[in-house]
Amino acid sequence: MAQGLTKKSEDFSQWYNEIVRRAELADYAPVRGCMVIRPYGYALWENIQATLDRRFKETGHQNAYFPLFIPHSFIQKEAQHVEGFSPQLAVVTHGGGEELEEPLVVRPTSETIIGHFFAKWISSYRDLPLLVNQWCNVVRWEMRPRLFLRTSEFLWQEGHTAHASLEEAEAEARLILDIYAEFAEKEAAIPVIQGRKSESEKFPGALVSYTIEGMMGDRRALQMGTSHNLGQNFARAFGIQYLDRDNQLKYCWTTSWGVSTRLIGAILMVHGDDQGLILPPRLAPIQVVVVPIYKSAEERTQVLEVCRRVQEALGGRVRLKVDDRDEYTAGWKFNEWELRGVPLRIEIGPRDVAAGQVVLARRDVPGREGKWAVPLSGLVEEVEKALEDIQRDLLRRAREFRDAHTHHPQDWEGFREAVEDGFAFAPWCGDAGCEAEIQAETKATNRCLPLDQPQLPAGAKCVRCGRPARETALFARAY
Amino acid sequence: MAQGLTKKSEDFSQWYNEIVRRAELADYAPVRGCMVIRPYGYALWENIQATLDRRFKETGHQNAYFPLFIPHSFIQKEAQHVEGFSPQLAVVTHGGGEELEEPLVVRPTSETIIGHFFAKWISSYRDLPLLVNQWCNVVRWEMRPRLFLRTSEFLWQEGHTAHASLEEAEAEARLILDIYAEFAEKEAAIPVIQGRKSESEKFPGALVSYTIEGMMGDRRALQMGTSHNLGQNFARAFGIQYLDRDNQLKYCWTTSWGVSTRLIGAILMVHGDDQGLILPPRLAPIQVVVVPIYKSAEERTQVLEVCRRVQEALGGRVRLKVDDRDEYTAGWKFNEWELRGVPLRIEIGPRDVAAGQVVLARRDVPGREGKWAVPLSGLVEEVEKALEDIQRDLLRRAREFRDAHTHHPQDWEGFREAVEDGFAFAPWCGDAGCEAEIQAETKATNRCLPLDQPQLPAGAKCVRCGRPARETALFARAY
Repeated sequence: MAQGLTKKSEDFSQWYNEIVRRAELADYAPVRGCMVIRPYGYALWENIQATLDRRFKETGHQNAYFPLFIPHSFIQKEAQHVEGFSPQLAVVTHGGGEELEEPLVVRPTSETIIGHFFAKWISSYRDLPLLVNQWCNVVRWEMRPRLFLRTSEFLWQEGHTAHASLEEAEAEARLILDIYAEFAEKEAAIPVIQGRKSESEKFPGALVSYTIEGMMGDRRALQMGTSHNLGQNFARAFGIQYLDRDNQLKYCWTTSWGVSTRLIGAILMVHGDDQGLILPPRLAPIQVVVVPIYKSAEERTQVLEVCRRVQEALGGRVRLKVDDRDEYTAGWKFNEWELRGVPLRIEIGPRDVAAGQVVLARRDVPGREGKWAVPLSGLVEEVEKALEDIQRDLLRRAREFRDAHTHHPQDWEGFREAVEDGFAFAPWCGDAGCEAEIQAETKATNRCLPLDQPQLPAGAKCVRCGRPARETALFARAY
Repeated sequence: MAQGLTKKSEDFSQWYNEIVRRAELADYAPVRGCMVIRPYGYALWENIQATLDRRFKETGHQNAYFPLFIPHSFIQKEAQHVEGFSPQLAVVTHGGGEELEEPLVVRPTSETIIGHFFAKWISSYRDLPLLVNQWCNVVRWEMRPRLFLRTSEFLWQEGHTAHASLEEAEAEARLILDIYAEFAEKEAAIPVIQGRKSESEKFPGALVSYTIEGMMGDRRALQMGTSHNLGQNFARAFGIQYLDRDNQLKYCWTTSWGVSTRLIGAILMVHGDDQGLILPPRLAPIQVVVVPIYKSAEERTQVLEVCRRVQEALGGRVRLKVDDRDEYTAGWKFNEWELRGVPLRIEIGPRDVAAGQVVLARRDVPGREGKWAVPLSGLVEEVEKALEDIQRDLLRRAREFRDAHTHHPQDWEGFREAVEDGFAFAPWCGDAGCEAEIQAETKATNRCLPLDQPQLPAGAKCVRCGRPARETALFARAY
């Protein structure tokens, strides 16, 4: 176990706070609720960005950049939107040494300002669909901050699209949800439930909100991304209209969708262990760390020479770092890179040099079981295979963990036990009051109405109130 | 000439304003001084980012992200810094529905907040050099906005580094200046003068500021990037100290450096003409546009089939768009893509199909001279060569234009004429008062003290006051 690190199994919350800072991913800023993302954390974000950005572009989206400052009056144009975001706004009242005529809101999300521009840019059916995305910072004032999970400022991408029909907007919202789910599973190695948010949990101003929900290491749920079909709500509020083929002026149908630096929190909470982080190879800033082991100067020369050869062979293929610092012992380095979650370690000592081999050690398989010797001649293939194995096994373990803590209670007693342990898929009447009672009594919230759910049995009853169930909902305690 | 577009030669300023909006690069926001960067403009920025980011990483810099909000007290810690930036600050006074105890500044630049973190992260000589960069938005309140050139919010990168000695900080500042100059010439096809800023023009809080200065199409200068050796000014203000090998606690030496979306303005102003933009191939979002020419449905089928083959052959090698919209004529498309600055056009008509060829047209060479037929079999090589030729010729033309408007006056009369026309390299006494008089009388400012300058002749006199000259300065009217 990394020295002085709280055990994940003993105090998950404390473990998380420590690991984010000890691994130099992020730290709190002097302004309450804000954070600095340090180079190691930001490199993880860059890898997340690159893979998502590629998927967005492949599906026809273009990046743009919209203004940080939104006139306060814009936020008020959509009734649910202003109600949802008003308590979280940061407000600029002075600029250039003078008090502003109208206060400016620092964007909490950009539906309003983008709606304003869409109304200017769209005039004909030929301008549709309009598919844009921006990578930016947003601000939502946060009283109980948590690094990556809840901060007053965070980084995200927000996609905004306009379409000629409800069906197209719906298809777009679902396409993006699929992209998010695919990213979560293939890149972040986190299995997710895709679902629709209930009326009380949906985005302020949306017609339908979709979500991907993952189970963290403490068995709580985390909303990892959302995709909203906004109907015509923002189109009407901002006058986004187009002249259709039939020469009629019509309102567009819009969507918005986003994932944020919160994803980093998810990756840490799903895969980490008592030793620290375990980063999925596809996203890890450093995929392979090479640690030389030596005592004498002569051994050092020999070992570092092999390190160099390993770097040459692997450097262009994997993200690799040779830790040749003299001031730390090999053992100290093992702990350090385990804590920082590097998925694969290559150890090279004098005996390995003599035998023409190196030793590989998997971060996700502790002890002797995860270590094996590999001849230098076959190193490239073995390392690439090991990284794939780790990626696959991380997803498998996360799925097994989630499934082991997922329940399908049919009555209130079973439901209470289920949400103590993890996820509860339960028949629900669809009533917001019932949903609120469940939360008040169990602290479990309605995470979503899963898209992929079995038909309810005839006569199924709401797990809380006993009235006829309308569908199955996923309840869990959540971040 | 593009329909209704003001001629560059007749009203440069109006031409610029029109071209930015007609080419859909950017537009003004509802908040005075702010802008939206539209997809075509943002794609140009992404290409600028990618090539600079690669250079930063190759030289050991890591990206990070620092908070948007800076406590007002931080800005006040460095005396020159607060004086320089106070008039331009946007101030957040309310957050989460309440008035804040201390107002927050929206970052105009991040030396102060980064200084705060560097002081926490650096403890030993082993932590040096610390080389970080961030890509982000900054806000400097602007009363006379101009798209890309002067906006209240803009995008940029800001590098911040800490070193163990003045020499290392100086070497870093110069390394970055070289990277900026190389980027300007090789990627943006803009020749630049590298120089040191005079005392009155340097960055608030810097020991030395370096700059790259380019000549725009109206013969005015534009500061395209700056790199500052900050000495120990910010290290002392924020307590950035390290324990040296000799066990002494010492202050670090820091640098900062940045380029912004202003670079987009430079590219437009240097290369554009009466027809619109001309984008350098290395940065152009679309390098090649394919325009089919047809009348009958049969011709359309044949021509589009060849378009598809061209796309297949070139798609993976160049950034290519096939404009197969039926609702516009080929002539309209020619104008449109000329206006938007696509460097190379491929025309394919029925006669070309029959002859097994296509016609290439260079955006930078008007009329018949820039058009030639190429057999399909040799298309890939010809297109790649044409793009290289365009890139090279744009730089050559920009250099010829600049040199034709560059003068070396030795007396006041000659100086006045020189700055009416363009750049004036002139002997200068080094006195700030003299510099101010020059500006008051000619509107020309001291752009820089060029790094690469001939030895002053013995007895050289200041072009303004006649006192002994200390060095050659570049004066010009500037943005």
